[in-house]
Amino acid sequence: MASSSSHTGASQPSAAGGPRVIVAGATGFTGALAAHLLWRHPDFELVAVTGRSELGRPLREVYPRYRVPLTFEPLEVERLQGIDAAVVAYPHAAAAPTVGALRERGIRVVDLSADFRLRSLAAYEQWYGEHPRPELLDEAVYGLTELHRDQIAGAGIVANPGCYPTASLLALAPLARAGLIADLVIDAKQGISGAGRVFDETTHLSMAGENIVPYKVAAHRHTPEIEEQLALLSSSADVAGAPAGATNELKVQFQAHLVPLDQGEMASCYVTTTRPVASEELKRMYTDAYAAEPFVELLLEHPPGVLEVRETNYCRVFAAADGHTGKVIAFGAIDNLWKGTSSQAVQNLNLMFGFPETRGLL
Amino acid sequence: MASSSSHTGASQPSAAGGPRVIVAGATGFTGALAAHLLWRHPDFELVAVTGRSELGRPLREVYPRYRVPLTFEPLEVERLQGIDAAVVAYPHAAAAPTVGALRERGIRVVDLSADFRLRSLAAYEQWYGEHPRPELLDEAVYGLTELHRDQIAGAGIVANPGCYPTASLLALAPLARAGLIADLVIDAKQGISGAGRVFDETTHLSMAGENIVPYKVAAHRHTPEIEEQLALLSSSADVAGAPAGATNELKVQFQAHLVPLDQGEMASCYVTTTRPVASEELKRMYTDAYAAEPFVELLLEHPPGVLEVRETNYCRVFAAADGHTGKVIAFGAIDNLWKGTSSQAVQNLNLMFGFPETRGLL
Amino acid sequence: MASSSSHTGASQPSAAGGPRVIVAGATGFTGALAAHLLWRHPDFELVAVTGRSELGRPLREVYPRYRVPLTFEPLEVERLQGIDAAVVAYPHAAAAPTVGALRERGIRVVDLSADFRLRSLAAYEQWYGEHPRPELLDEAVYGLTELHRDQIAGAGIVANPGCYPTASLLALAPLARAGLIADLVIDAKQGISGAGRVFDETTHLSMAGENIVPYKVAAHRHTPEIEEQLALLSSSADVAGAPAGATNELKVQFQAHLVPLDQGEMASCYVTTTRPVASEELKRMYTDAYAAEPFVELLLEHPPGVLEVRETNYCRVFAAADGHTGKVIAFGAIDNLWKGTSSQAVQNLNLMFGFPETRGLL
Amino acid sequence: MASSSSHTGASQPSAAGGPRVIVAGATGFTGALAAHLLWRHPDFELVAVTGRSELGRPLREVYPRYRVPLTFEPLEVERLQGIDAAVVAYPHAAAAPTVGALRERGIRVVDLSADFRLRSLAAYEQWYGEHPRPELLDEAVYGLTELHRDQIAGAGIVANPGCYPTASLLALAPLARAGLIADLVIDAKQGISGAGRVFDETTHLSMAGENIVPYKVAAHRHTPEIEEQLALLSSSADVAGAPAGATNELKVQFQAHLVPLDQGEMASCYVTTTRPVASEELKRMYTDAYAAEPFVELLLEHPPGVLEVRETNYCRVFAAADGHTGKVIAFGAIDNLWKGTSSQAVQNLNLMFGFPETRGLL
Repeated sequence: MASSSSHTGASQPSAAGGPRVIVAGATGFTGALAAHLLWRHPDFELVAVTGRSELGRPLREVYPRYRVPLTFEPLEVERLQGIDAAVVAYPHAAAAPTVGALRERGIRVVDLSADFRLRSLAAYEQWYGEHPRPELLDEAVYGLTELHRDQIAGAGIVANPGCYPTASLLALAPLARAGLIADLVIDAKQGISGAGRVFDETTHLSMAGENIVPYKVAAHRHTPEIEEQLALLSSSADVAGAPAGATNELKVQFQAHLVPLDQGEMASCYVTTTRPVASEELKRMYTDAYAAEPFVELLLEHPPGVLEVRETNYCRVFAAADGHTGKVIAFGAIDNLWKGTSSQAVQNLNLMFGFPETRGLL
Repeated sequence: MASSSSHTGASQPSAAGGPRVIVAGATGFTGALAAHLLWRHPDFELVAVTGRSELGRPLREVYPRYRVPLTFEPLEVERLQGIDAAVVAYPHAAAAPTVGALRERGIRVVDLSADFRLRSLAAYEQWYGEHPRPELLDEAVYGLTELHRDQIAGAGIVANPGCYPTASLLALAPLARAGLIADLVIDAKQGISGAGRVFDETTHLSMAGENIVPYKVAAHRHTPEIEEQLALLSSSADVAGAPAGATNELKVQFQAHLVPLDQGEMASCYVTTTRPVASEELKRMYTDAYAAEPFVELLLEHPPGVLEVRETNYCRVFAAADGHTGKVIAFGAIDNLWKGTSSQAVQNLNLMFGFPETRGLL
Repeated sequence: MASSSSHTGASQPSAAGGPRVIVAGATGFTGALAAHLLWRHPDFELVAVTGRSELGRPLREVYPRYRVPLTFEPLEVERLQGIDAAVVAYPHAAAAPTVGALRERGIRVVDLSADFRLRSLAAYEQWYGEHPRPELLDEAVYGLTELHRDQIAGAGIVANPGCYPTASLLALAPLARAGLIADLVIDAKQGISGAGRVFDETTHLSMAGENIVPYKVAAHRHTPEIEEQLALLSSSADVAGAPAGATNELKVQFQAHLVPLDQGEMASCYVTTTRPVASEELKRMYTDAYAAEPFVELLLEHPPGVLEVRETNYCRVFAAADGHTGKVIAFGAIDNLWKGTSSQAVQNLNLMFGFPETRGLL
Repeated sequence: MASSSSHTGASQPSAAGGPRVIVAGATGFTGALAAHLLWRHPDFELVAVTGRSELGRPLREVYPRYRVPLTFEPLEVERLQGIDAAVVAYPHAAAAPTVGALRERGIRVVDLSADFRLRSLAAYEQWYGEHPRPELLDEAVYGLTELHRDQIAGAGIVANPGCYPTASLLALAPLARAGLIADLVIDAKQGISGAGRVFDETTHLSMAGENIVPYKVAAHRHTPEIEEQLALLSSSADVAGAPAGATNELKVQFQAHLVPLDQGEMASCYVTTTRPVASEELKRMYTDAYAAEPFVELLLEHPPGVLEVRETNYCRVFAAADGHTGKVIAFGAIDNLWKGTSSQAVQNLNLMFGFPETRGLL
């Protein structure tokens, strides 16, 4: 009989001997999933999960789908011994001090919050308020794996991207790199898991189940993250003839919507380009960018559905020229909890510890 | 015991003595709903439903929710006697000849197809192919009630709008009338009933149920309908100082998505304006437009959810200035089968026969 | 422009001049729906809705689908003037004192709680604890309209049935009246609205959305209500040759499950009969019972689906002999919020005030 | 770039060097899932998928979630070379001749159809009609792994159980073995994937999505399979004092329902016992039966929800004494496509080829 009193049944043990990792704040959807993925990972050893609201309960009781027998503990950073890495799943502003404390003990961190995603302290303070640990910003690397693979490998702090930026930036990176984005609207749709383990009108099946609801109108905090990364991509444009820097001061009109499914996210990106772009050029540009990417599935003939990436680390991308308007439309489809958050964290941990990027994720 | 052999139970009889109406093509979702609404309408008498694929079956057997005991008949226009009006729910191109035949017998028609929605024959032929009865175009009135109330009242043919144009145009009309739309993206989301009584991967719950799927990328046939009506609104702009005609040649980037609910539709409209528009001006403009409209619910503080209009003829509208980009965002939420199609058809019939516009619809 | 600041749009006014009614506790799902149905009822005048948790908010803001502009007030029974009837939607034990106070002012009550459903005080106390106002039990009539129509018409207190008893008893009444039920299992399934406006793991779409969950195993409080009513039906058996009283001491094995839809409930009833019952006898028995019932739709060839009764006061019933086991299976399908609770309350109010039973409900 | 023209992206290659397996009839839901599980299995090499309706298309195009790049071929048994095993996913009656042909070439078969599930030819012919290959019945072993592990290991034909029998028998086996089942009702609920890749009213989201529908009333073909296995379990009862054989001639009242989710199945089993059984005895009995089972999770305090086993090979079981009626209630929760069909097929293949039973399934 299994060790937990709640039920019997087998569960693969976590890998002993590999890098030792903890998940801080594993009571929420994304922390719990990160724990699940690390528990079944062949190379990492998940040694603890923390979370004040469920102290003493096994994770697998709170999240029956995630068969992690570890029991929620309080996080006491000063008592941590022999820990190599931590995934921190705290709200913004709460995360930074903990990340700092973990770094002081030499622990490498993948932070799921927004605290280290923006390079610009001014932008952070405009959208989030005062930053608790601004001196750590320099140490942080933006963790969209496909864009910053090299820096992530050696980073002390990886700022895991927001789910909307992940889907949007993967849909747009080839255009941004070519300096082609003159104006941009992103309409994003997400399943209810995106609201988190929050119990209110937003998540009650009777209110959310047959609904489509826009939220945070004209003020979503993922906007500056998308803008900063697009500017970065654009500034490095070395394509001959590209009107370099067109994207640099781009203001993105971003709008999020909740739709009635559990996990899944679609970013529909409407691009006014700096010059006409034909379909063949688009195909070539996107194929060049993504042919070697293990977790980007580039579709060439039709747009993706989010079900195709459910519970995977894949992002499906499709881009098309709109002959009617002369604009471009690009789609990025992900699972908001997986590639949008927790499995991308594992993808980054793989890089940080020298494992193949796909380990534990196929 | 009730007359049908399939089950017992009471059902309100259709109103005798009022205008006599038929629904042609009532085997599909929209025709069946139109029949349901007319059957329970206090003033119209629904006398027949037609549909070849279900000949001889009572409508209430095919659509148990719609307790219409009438049996599907073949449509034989030449034998119709004493019919005042018809709702035609045929596919485009198939509708026009039937509409013509009905008109020849003096029957007034609300046509749910696309055949008479576009004033421009050239636009029709570009998007749909040859028009079967172009000579009837002049007789047709575009049936978005709130925009063309006066012409609808006296029309012989009312071209009921597409569901996407209904939600989009109600969200945008005040801006268009003021000549303020310089560029426009519409991202629309709809429940699976929008795919109709079609049985394939698009509608199977296992494939559609946890999915978000864009469709008809950069080529949706509702686009010209939206453009033509926006141009019309814009050309009539008499607001002092408005750069009249800005919307006239507007090319709209329109994209539709299926999301996993049954009935409901949201048009999210991203507007680049011809000049800055402040929130207060927006509120005033929209309140002026809609305060007296019985079926437009203007929200002033937050966007609508589609559940709020489910199985009603209401359209909920919300517009906001986006301080970040200087653009405007406007939302229109409807039930695609109701205000998007069948209840708007009844709203138009009310007008055409001199009944209060809300009769049978509250 | 409409009176509320939250949005514009028309709404049918409540009928003036008819019996004046209030809904006490209209902040929950069932009270709010009762208010909605009474507001649009052609003969009742809804004059107030009460609810402490939403004081001062218009009902139509809390429940946007229900366009009732009345604002939530506190319930002050002693200040009520000129009120003819009240629907009380309080939890059990909390309801009885309020019902008593309303009765003292001559107000007729439909009580949605369990407080007056059981004739047996002993049974009440066994399942619910001490009864706050046992002296009122004699005045109460069990409000399953189809079973107690005559008493309801003149009652001061109508104890509206539980939703599970409604579906179960309508599925079983013909068998019970004939004294044919020797043993009985009821497996009931209900949509998430049955959990009410409760925000927790039970109702969060991410946890409830792809789930089937049994609850209250072997201990559902609707059990004694079903048993008492079945015994009552059985004791009045006057069918010649029926083993009268077989159902009298029946212990019912009842189990409820939540399934991922909003509104809808199915009671699947497995009956061991006291003697073999052939299909033809079943059909005759059920047709005799229900042919004249306006809100019972008896199916003769296949079982119902709950979607067929969604947002209606209908109960669909189907019964079949099981040749394999010699038992009978009977199904009752209702909308748990409508016939299961709030529209049945209106059906009872129609009877109590002499209106046709179907008024406001077709 | 990946080999398929449809998209780019990485996919784990199938294991080379292990037993070579094919899936015949992989165009349906269960065959496709079996292919997916075998493709990513660390020890089997999936070498072909067959299916006439999708000839020439890669499986991963038809089922985007299953990233199997193999292309659908016709099945030509006589040309098969070096194949060790086959999963056959054909309809009943169509399966048996193919199974026979595969056996003649020495290929071991897991058959997902009903053709070899019943030991009794008479029972087969009563429920299904003439058996195409009755002489093979003796060679077949019933593939409910937990009940027939030893015979499965050496079998040439494993008749994979139906999904309903899997959930029901695991919920009931301890009671049956003890000879305690005197009477039995099984009420089963299943997601829409149980209807398969069938496109009709049963599966259209607009009709199935907010529905609960009983089907095959009093005549489900899984009934004899459950009865035969219960009798088998009961006949081997050697518990002292047990009224051996009580279950032997049991007629089970079984009823299936479709509920609106994708994957998941709950069997709610209502047991009249041959003698009173206390909760403690139940717990002991079930713990003895399942403590060592890797894929049975026995709950001790509350019933399972099907979401807890979604996309896993686990069956969650809970049994409780019903103090009110003196009966027992037992629940079995599985994923109908996984443990109910395809992952149980892999569990059986693991046994047949000497791999640990959990390989490729945790």
